[in-house]
Amino acid sequence: MSVIVNTDSRQNMIQSTALLMRERGVDATSFSEVLAHSGAPRGSIYHHFPGGKAQLIEEATRFAGEFTAAGLAAAMRDSEPVAAVRGFVSLWRKILTRSDFGAGCPVVAAALEGDRAPAVRDAAAKAFSQWEELLADAVEPHAPGRAHSIATLIIASIEGAVVLARAQRSVAPLERVAEELDRVITAALG
Amino acid sequence: MSVIVNTDSRQNMIQSTALLMRERGVDATSFSEVLAHSGAPRGSIYHHFPGGKAQLIEEATRFAGEFTAAGLAAAMRDSEPVAAVRGFVSLWRKILTRSDFGAGCPVVAAALEGDRAPAVRDAAAKAFSQWEELLADAVEPHAPGRAHSIATLIIASIEGAVVLARAQRSVAPLERVAEELDRVITAALG
Repeated sequence: MSVIVNTDSRQNMIQSTALLMRERGVDATSFSEVLAHSGAPRGSIYHHFPGGKAQLIEEATRFAGEFTAAGLAAAMRDSEPVAAVRGFVSLWRKILTRSDFGAGCPVVAAALEGDRAPAVRDAAAKAFSQWEELLADAVEPHAPGRAHSIATLIIASIEGAVVLARAQRSVAPLERVAEELDRVITAALG
Repeated sequence: MSVIVNTDSRQNMIQSTALLMRERGVDATSFSEVLAHSGAPRGSIYHHFPGGKAQLIEEATRFAGEFTAAGLAAAMRDSEPVAAVRGFVSLWRKILTRSDFGAGCPVVAAALEGDRAPAVRDAAAKAFSQWEELLADAVEPHAPGRAHSIATLIIASIEGAVVLARAQRSVAPLERVAEELDRVITAALG
């Protein structure tokens, strides 16, 4: 029983960290806030994360990367690429409006850590690569040779549009990017 | 003479802040580092920036926005859109490789401040809008109706690609996005 409780509290802390990172970035995501958000007991931090904040942020980045990858994989399995990308954009529209443009992508926050936290940056790199590969695999049969560049365009432009949307407090940049992506994917997959 | 020295030190501090922001974001850009980087005397901070760090970051964001806008305007005046965007991508390639993938966009860093620093976030929003308008104006004669969405795709995808490139410590994501943008712009302007 104690094991199950511990596992839950560990996983809750990781999820809380990812949720806080997407709003405030890495620097401003403190242990105290993770504890308050997850309801985990203070003593549990170094028990679950002996590597301290760096380990917690790294695991939260990996979690966010895999969570999104699972969603992308399901979308690519169940829909054509155009519809799957539209679904991904809809999800972002909801995240942005429900958070009053406060929430962005935790993996982008992690990527910006650079040499200050190489393991965190590398976890972000891995997440981006995994998403690119999932999209490239779905595009490949339709547009061989361009699959990887189309996949990168999709990830980069949606991530960039989320940053623009947060700054401008409007989903309009995301809608405009979605419109152009729709066109690119439809034309490539002809 | 004192006025000139003061003006220089004020401008140096703004430029140093923008350079530090692009490497470490807003939180980790401290007054001490701005002073060390700019060589400005400690006493000059509240003389030049009575609003403290928030004002300095806001002015650095505005400076970065206008600096980039001036570059984009010149490129759009002197070249066709495809060549201008290629030039913008080349500039990013240089920034990324020369900084060993440490430097990104200070306006993205500012955008992520959100409600913690609304004036900073709003300065980022204004910079993005200004860049989008410059690009849209150049595209408009060739692709009326799509000018704004193409402009947003260019800004969002390059900003996103810079984040991916920093994470992956490789210019490859930027190259792939540039390849697809080239195709989009060429087809639209055909």
